[in-house]
Amino acid sequence: MASLSVAFSPLLFERYETQGAIAVVIDVLRATSAISAAFESGVEAVVPVETLEEAREWKKKGFLVGAERDGQKIPEFDFGNSPYDYIDPALRGKTTVLTTTNGTRALHLAGKTAGMVICASFVNLGAVIDWLSAQDRDVVILCSGWKDRFNLEDSMCAGAIVEGLFKCRQFTEFNDSALASRYLYQAAKANTFKVLRSSSHGRRLARLNLKRDIRYSLTPDQSNIIPVLKGDRLVAMPR
Amino acid sequence: MASLSVAFSPLLFERYETQGAIAVVIDVLRATSAISAAFESGVEAVVPVETLEEAREWKKKGFLVGAERDGQKIPEFDFGNSPYDYIDPALRGKTTVLTTTNGTRALHLAGKTAGMVICASFVNLGAVIDWLSAQDRDVVILCSGWKDRFNLEDSMCAGAIVEGLFKCRQFTEFNDSALASRYLYQAAKANTFKVLRSSSHGRRLARLNLKRDIRYSLTPDQSNIIPVLKGDRLVAMPR
Repeated sequence: MASLSVAFSPLLFERYETQGAIAVVIDVLRATSAISAAFESGVEAVVPVETLEEAREWKKKGFLVGAERDGQKIPEFDFGNSPYDYIDPALRGKTTVLTTTNGTRALHLAGKTAGMVICASFVNLGAVIDWLSAQDRDVVILCSGWKDRFNLEDSMCAGAIVEGLFKCRQFTEFNDSALASRYLYQAAKANTFKVLRSSSHGRRLARLNLKRDIRYSLTPDQSNIIPVLKGDRLVAMPR
Repeated sequence: MASLSVAFSPLLFERYETQGAIAVVIDVLRATSAISAAFESGVEAVVPVETLEEAREWKKKGFLVGAERDGQKIPEFDFGNSPYDYIDPALRGKTTVLTTTNGTRALHLAGKTAGMVICASFVNLGAVIDWLSAQDRDVVILCSGWKDRFNLEDSMCAGAIVEGLFKCRQFTEFNDSALASRYLYQAAKANTFKVLRSSSHGRRLARLNLKRDIRYSLTPDQSNIIPVLKGDRLVAMPR
């Protein structure tokens, strides 16, 4: 028996029992969705880095590098964080590097205290629920948010995981954010696209004409792979 | 036209547009509910203080002082933070002092940047919505939470205010927390007591045998008074 928490923002993460826990990092729009797309294309690893400076160092070393800030690709790099940038058979066996406004920062934060860090999104939702339901450690779901603020898409996805786990695993403790995210998901699940369109990030991405990315990122169970942090890189969890 | 934000935790408050805004501080269980009860009993003012040391100084000066930590009254003081401690005709015309785990801290935080700070709870819900709907400034609703964590009761109450405001006032911007709190309230409003019983604080208060306080704190519209911060003290807003 163990505890289940949801941190609605990186600022709140350290308020929960993260020491030794499994941290589940969510950045639906779009880092963890894009990372799942990359693993479906057969990448060997994805290295999440925090700063553009680090990203430039990796690029100099000859790596393919994705970089996004404020929803847009940084021109000097190979990709942005659109999942469609990573749906490419040419990526098979490659190690790519990624830096984004929120998601890669959240992965680094989680890595500081958690016993294990995995990536989740709607894209690999079922696989994440199945795997988590067979573990017996504390779970902290970390919503990457938007510049430390709460966002709707990550908390809906957190709620989808909570809903799945409540059906098949007992927790001795679950926090109010876990309950709230579940209510939110129940309210939104019949039409996540419509709910999200009204959100701040949905409106922002609609202005950037990224409806296709939103649809991809809200479509569940396109991948059975769980990206897990090993040292400085994400690899596919052996199953 | 203006913006409407909800901060689900004091840690998130400074991430929103608080400069000059109306800050609406919520601590349903139980500070802002108890403050409303005190104004219904006719107090002249309530002085929110952050530390027990400050509370002791006020007590030495002869004031009636309420003090709560971790859900329980501190023995050396006159009251805890139960609303029923403040339902007393003997309080008419008095100035009382209050320090609590979360709510009084949130009032101080809000006072640092907001243009105006008011107290809200279910107890004065309708009055708060009516008054806010006639203002044209930015509004930031601050959920006091529990030791900086998200909690269900404050976010439900925030959602009730958002729901009320959406019906009668246009906002140019509203954030994802505002939308999420509204979904949460819509899911919970048919039975807030049951929803809250499953929350962390509901379980904590049930252990402390405070069901009566919870019922009081979830009963809307028992007061038409809006407590507003003037200098170091809350007074009834002139209407």
